[in-house]
This record gives sequence, C-alpha cells and structure tokens, in this order.
Amino acid sequence: MQKLILTSLVLISTGILRAQAVLDADASDPVKMGWMQGFPPPSGKIVSAIDGSFFKFPALRYSVCHMREFMPTTVVKASGEKGYHFKSRLDENIDNLVFTPHNSEKSMTWRESLAANYTDGMLVLHKGKIVYERYFGELRPDGLHAAMSVSKTFTGTLGGLLVAEGVLDENRRGADYVPELEGSAFGDATVRQILDMTTGLKYSEDYSDPKAEIWAFSAAGNPFSKTEEGPSNYYDYLKTVQKEGEHGEVFGYKTVNTDVMGWIVSKVTGKSIPDLLSGRIWKPLGAHFDGYFQIDGAGIAFAGGGFSANMRDMAMFGEMVRKKGKFNKKQILPESLIEDIMNGGDREAFGKSAYSSLKGWSYRNMWWHTHNEHGAFAARGVHGQTIYIDPAAEMVIVRFSSHPEAKNSKIDPTSLPAYHAVAKYLLTK
Amino acid sequence: MQKLILTSLVLISTGILRAQAVLDADASDPVKMGWMQGFPPPSGKIVSAIDGSFFKFPALRYSVCHMREFMPTTVVKASGEKGYHFKSRLDENIDNLVFTPHNSEKSMTWRESLAANYTDGMLVLHKGKIVYERYFGELRPDGLHAAMSVSKTFTGTLGGLLVAEGVLDENRRGADYVPELEGSAFGDATVRQILDMTTGLKYSEDYSDPKAEIWAFSAAGNPFSKTEEGPSNYYDYLKTVQKEGEHGEVFGYKTVNTDVMGWIVSKVTGKSIPDLLSGRIWKPLGAHFDGYFQIDGAGIAFAGGGFSANMRDMAMFGEMVRKKGKFNKKQILPESLIEDIMNGGDREAFGKSAYSSLKGWSYRNMWWHTHNEHGAFAARGVHGQTIYIDPAAEMVIVRFSSHPEAKNSKIDPTSLPAYHAVAKYLLTK
Repeated sequence: MQKLILTSLVLISTGILRAQAVLDADASDPVKMGWMQGFPPPSGKIVSAIDGSFFKFPALRYSVCHMREFMPTTVVKASGEKGYHFKSRLDENIDNLVFTPHNSEKSMTWRESLAANYTDGMLVLHKGKIVYERYFGELRPDGLHAAMSVSKTFTGTLGGLLVAEGVLDENRRGADYVPELEGSAFGDATVRQILDMTTGLKYSEDYSDPKAEIWAFSAAGNPFSKTEEGPSNYYDYLKTVQKEGEHGEVFGYKTVNTDVMGWIVSKVTGKSIPDLLSGRIWKPLGAHFDGYFQIDGAGIAFAGGGFSANMRDMAMFGEMVRKKGKFNKKQILPESLIEDIMNGGDREAFGKSAYSSLKGWSYRNMWWHTHNEHGAFAARGVHGQTIYIDPAAEMVIVRFSSHPEAKNSKIDPTSLPAYHAVAKYLLTK
Repeated sequence: MQKLILTSLVLISTGILRAQAVLDADASDPVKMGWMQGFPPPSGKIVSAIDGSFFKFPALRYSVCHMREFMPTTVVKASGEKGYHFKSRLDENIDNLVFTPHNSEKSMTWRESLAANYTDGMLVLHKGKIVYERYFGELRPDGLHAAMSVSKTFTGTLGGLLVAEGVLDENRRGADYVPELEGSAFGDATVRQILDMTTGLKYSEDYSDPKAEIWAFSAAGNPFSKTEEGPSNYYDYLKTVQKEGEHGEVFGYKTVNTDVMGWIVSKVTGKSIPDLLSGRIWKPLGAHFDGYFQIDGAGIAFAGGGFSANMRDMAMFGEMVRKKGKFNKKQILPESLIEDIMNGGDREAFGKSAYSSLKGWSYRNMWWHTHNEHGAFAARGVHGQTIYIDPAAEMVIVRFSSHPEAKNSKIDPTSLPAYHAVAKYLLTK
C-alpha cells in the first residue's frame, strides 16, 4: 500500500491526475467498499483505531465521517431549536463549468474535479443562498466530517476576536498570558506572531521524517498513551518546543502555534476552545448540529486539527465571515476583525516560507489569503478540507474530502482554479 | 480508598446510610472537587481513562456526565427542530415529603434522599407535566448522563417492539436469527428467554471476583485492547458463552443477554441499536439532545450499558411508555407491547434468582416490575440510574446519580420508598 501511494504521488505530481495505482474516488467510495457494514462487519472491513489504520487511505474515507467512533471527543453545542435555514437557488450549470488545472494543459469540468479530489461534500453559497450542494460516499446532509486544519481557523478567529475585544494585547508575549510557556519558543513570541505563525520554532511537521517533532506532539495528545516519560498532554508538550531563528520574520506553518493560541485563549477566558466556539460562534450562528473536538488525556481539545462539523453549519460560519461578521441580522464577530482577516497577512514573511509555491499568498489569524483579484481567502485542512471565501463573487465554498494525499499542494491544482472558475461564473449572475 | 469504600459498604449494609468514611454527596460534588478544571487541570484533578480511574468514585461523579470524553462513541440522533417541550407545574411540597427507608426506623425527607443517593439529576412528571426537577454537581439541563443498565431497557423495548410487529418470533431460538450463536448458550435460548433474562448461563457478573466472566466480556469490548488472544469485540465474546442449567426456569440478571438481544435486533433490521433507537424512538419522541453509545473496536454499541442521554429526553420516553406508547399525539410504540411490559414477567422465575430480595418483582422485556399496589415498573442501572413509572399515580421519575456503590441494593432503601411516597402524594392531587 505504501508503494501504491508513492506511485500515485509521482503520477499526481507529474500531472497525471487520475492515478492508476491508487484507487480512484469511485473505487474507494467507502460505502461501496463496505467499511463497518454488517453485524459484525467482516474482519477485513473493520476500521479500527488500534493500529492507526483508520487514518490511512482508503479507510480514511470512512473515518473522516466517524471520528468520534475512534477516539474520545468533547461536544461543541449547536443552537438547539433556533437553527438557521439557508435558502436555495440551485444552479445546474455549475457542474459543466470548465477550467484548466494548474500545471496541466487539459481542461476539466467542475463535476470532474469533484471525483479528482475525492470530494465527500461540496456546498457553494452565492449571495447567501445555496447554489450547489452534493454529498458523496459516507457523508450525509445531517452528518459531520473531520475539518482537519480548518480547525485552526476557528481557533485563530477566536484569538483574533479576543484581540479585537481588547482581552488580548497582540503585542504581549505568550508567557505573559501562559506563564508555563516561559523558556519555550512561545515564551517571547507575541500573540500576533503566534496568530500569524511567524514564530521561529525548532519543530518539524514533516510526516515522512520519523524524527520529526510532530510525532512527539501526537504522542503527547494520545489519550491512551501510557508512557511514563515525555509529556502526557498537548500543553505539556508545548512547553518543550524550542526556538530556532527569530520570531516575526518567516511564516512557518506549524500546528503547535494553534494549540498555543488555544491555550492562551482558554487561560484568559476560562473556557475550553469547544465551549468558547459554541458560545461565541456556533450557537449565535444557529448551527444545527453539535460539532465535536478530539481531546487528549487531560481533556484538552486538539485546537490545531481536532474539529468535526456539519457542512451547512460550516457554510454559516463562512457566510458570516463574508458578511463582515454579520449573519441572520446579528453581528456575531466584530467587523474590524473580519477586515483584518480580509486584508491578509505579511506576504514577505509568507514568500520566504516553504509555502512559497502559493505565490503572493499570506496568512493572518490562521486564515490563508490568496491575494488574487477577487481577494479570496480560505480555511484549509489536509486531505482537501476548505472554507473558501470569494468576496468579489459574493461566494462561499465549503468542501469536505478524503483525498489519499494529505498535502493540499497535491489537491490545489484541481481545486483552486475550479473555485475561481465558479466565482467568475457567479459574477455574471 | 479501597479500604474506605469497604468501610462504607459495611456501614451502609448495617443501615447507617450516611457513611462516615466515604465522602458524602456534598463533599464529593464533582464541581467542588475541581475535576478537570483549569488549563491544564492540576495533575491530581485529571480524570483519565488510561487506568480506569475515571470510573471510580469520587471521579465517577464527574465522568458520568462526560462519558464520550473517555471513549469512542456513536451518536443517537435527536429530532432536530421538532423537539417536544414539557409543561411545568412545579410543586415545592415534594421536597418535604417524609418516608421511612427500608431497614430503617428513622424517617427521611425526599430532599434528604437526594443527597443520600448522590443524586445528579431528578425529574418527576405527574400527568405528563414536570412537578419536580433538580440538577446537582456536574449535570446541567442540556447535559447528558450515563444511563448504565437503563440502556438495557431501550434494547429490550426495541426487541419487544420487533416481537410485537412480527419481525421476531419470541419462540424461535437465538441461532435462528444469529447463526453465529449456534453452539453457545444463546443458540437454543428463545428470543423470549433472552428478553426476560431466563437463560441458563455459565457467566458471572460478580465484579469482586477477578475470574468472573464479566472481565473477559469487558476486555472484548475495549476498543483499545490489543491482545492477540481472545475475542476482540462484544459479538465474538457472546459466541463463547456456555450454557449452565436450563433456559426458562430462573431469572438471571446478566448483561450479555442484552447484548445478544442487540445482536439479534441488528441482524434482522440491518441497523445498529443507536440507529434503530434514534429512528424508532428518539426522533419520534421529539428528543432534544443527541444521545450516544459507547462502542467496541468493531463499532458495535454496548447495548447492555453504554447509553448516555439527557434527563428530559429520558422523561419523554418514560411518559410515552406510561401512556401506552402514545406521546405528543403519536403512537410511537404499540399498545400491546406496553401492556406486555406493564403485566410484568415470571415472578416465580424471579423469586428463584439472586434478586429475591426484591420480593414479588419480575422482569420482562428488560424492564423491572415491582408488582406493588400501584403496578410500578422501572428501568434500572448501577450507581442509581432509573426511569420509574407508577401507572396508578400517573407518575414518571427519572433519576441520574453517581452513588459510590454500584449495586442498587445499596441505593433502593432510600429510593424505592421515596418514589412510592411521592406517588401516594401525587394521587391526592
């Protein structure tokens, strides 16, 4: 299997998008594969957390819709009976829109891009109405899906909210709010540097390197880890992260920044990220479905990646941000915060990073900014999760997917130009 | 701590109900004890699943409201926006009602009984209206609580429903529906014997015996167990249970009967217990809050004890049963099924069991029947969980609690006479 994935990597990177060796979207459809069906499921069809296989493609395509069934979780309460309902004005033309994938000469339709990206769910809002909505594989309209690093955007937005409200001073140091961070890399990093991930950290998130620090971070967050040595929860790990280089100079996309931000937010508010997200955003929006967060052995939510949520609820969040914090006649987030997000971050710091392939982009409050001609910006998570907001086209896209590749650099070529093609189409409507 | 609990056992069994050595309800209040408070919680205040301490008193008092935070779970979906609302007619007199606990000469007030029983939540319905409602410790009106063996009653009711609908024939054998049970004790036990727990099983549920079969059953259900030998899920364990004595003669309260019933129900419906409970009961009732079930490594719900639910939602279920299956103008369960439950089971078989201290009681469709002068019957779970239905008094009680003692025989003396006292009071209203 490892070899098959490597093969597909080569194929995908050379622009042959329908890899031969890895199962395609249809062949890896989790319902067709029969994961966890039957009483009991046949042994070869059991997806389990014991050996971590639940997070490997193709079983991953099942698991992303069932994260709570593999780990302890804590609830992000929805609004109960005051749920918001989108109006719909479905537009069948979208399926046939044509675009040219990055690094390709062959065009593709929007509809084809869904399979190319192993899409589980796709929702497009235009001017606040649903114009496109599809569910595939294991995802249902009332289901949840792992948001992966889209979770970071929620934590960053809450951090930005506290800055906007004056609860946090963006120029103060991490250790000013969390004394336990003194002596770590985050001790003398400012709230702003943490929010924009311009901290200088001796920390690798390269999953292909068995010595990368990400593995120690993951181990610390495993609630069933019994090691006597080493940190036994996320916070204990964060205290050990060391500085490398200077803060404030280069964007470095490292999950630990988000978990430190979560720690700071919880310290000053006395609330966990799931509770704060529920109270400040999920309930006010009128979210229909309880979301949840993966937690560690000390009950600490994985602020950098542990959120699962419903697609329409995600779309409410995106639409609220597009409308500068206002949704369903309520100002949920301050306009100044959203303007700060929409202005984007430090493009020079971003250009010096490993993400320089995203030319001209920036990162602010844990949002990615394309700085394209529409001013589009996004929340992004591995395996293809996104909330993509195009202000010029008055468009919000939410996509959940379970691409065999984690890295969005493998998924963007058939996604970003597709989003932009829909945006340009919607501008004509 | 072990010694303290043993001490309290002796004290409680000798009728000294306010044990000196074990923390009382107020001293063990989980909020006051500070479990899981702070970011991170202090090390002595972390409740963890790693060593199983989350399920030991007094940490248990926290955990019963947070089961999903310690284990994989699967959802029991609520009804979304069509939730039912009880009317209230609170009656402050109830707190001062006086009763005499069993085996005691000293009377007690209803209010005192709540603390004596480490009550987390108490709700009394009279003629379908809330007349009494209290929350203590960690439980909130929008929270969930472990139902423990009250879960059995849901599984049994679903089994009884399928019998009433003719989907199951109560005279057919377990192996007729689940061929994998052939050769086990359940292979030649009838559906009726399983539903009423009159199977003859070589199976001990004595938690004080380290060789009791319950430990192997628990190990099989542990989703993080990695043992190569032995069953790795509930169903694989159930196949190994051997027969002892004859079926149909003696009531034997053994959890595995419920899990076999769950297996039969899932085999014939193609649905898991959580999905069936949601579709046939929770959504039709208008339950407000998603419940959930603890699951094993094959995704199988612990039908015999893994349900967590909201107290008012539980009360809807109780009231529906009291009204012979009708609730909020809908016939949710067939009247014939409820009449069968209200008639109770085989009192002779019950009298021959280890539960003979509950004089004159019986067990039917996984409901306990008191056969008292009011015809009261109940769902019951360890540590004091109950749904208690008194048809004569038109009363339904839901209690969640976290008594240091698991066995209801230690909790009944200050509970059953208290319920009967309220029933008699409500009869005068």
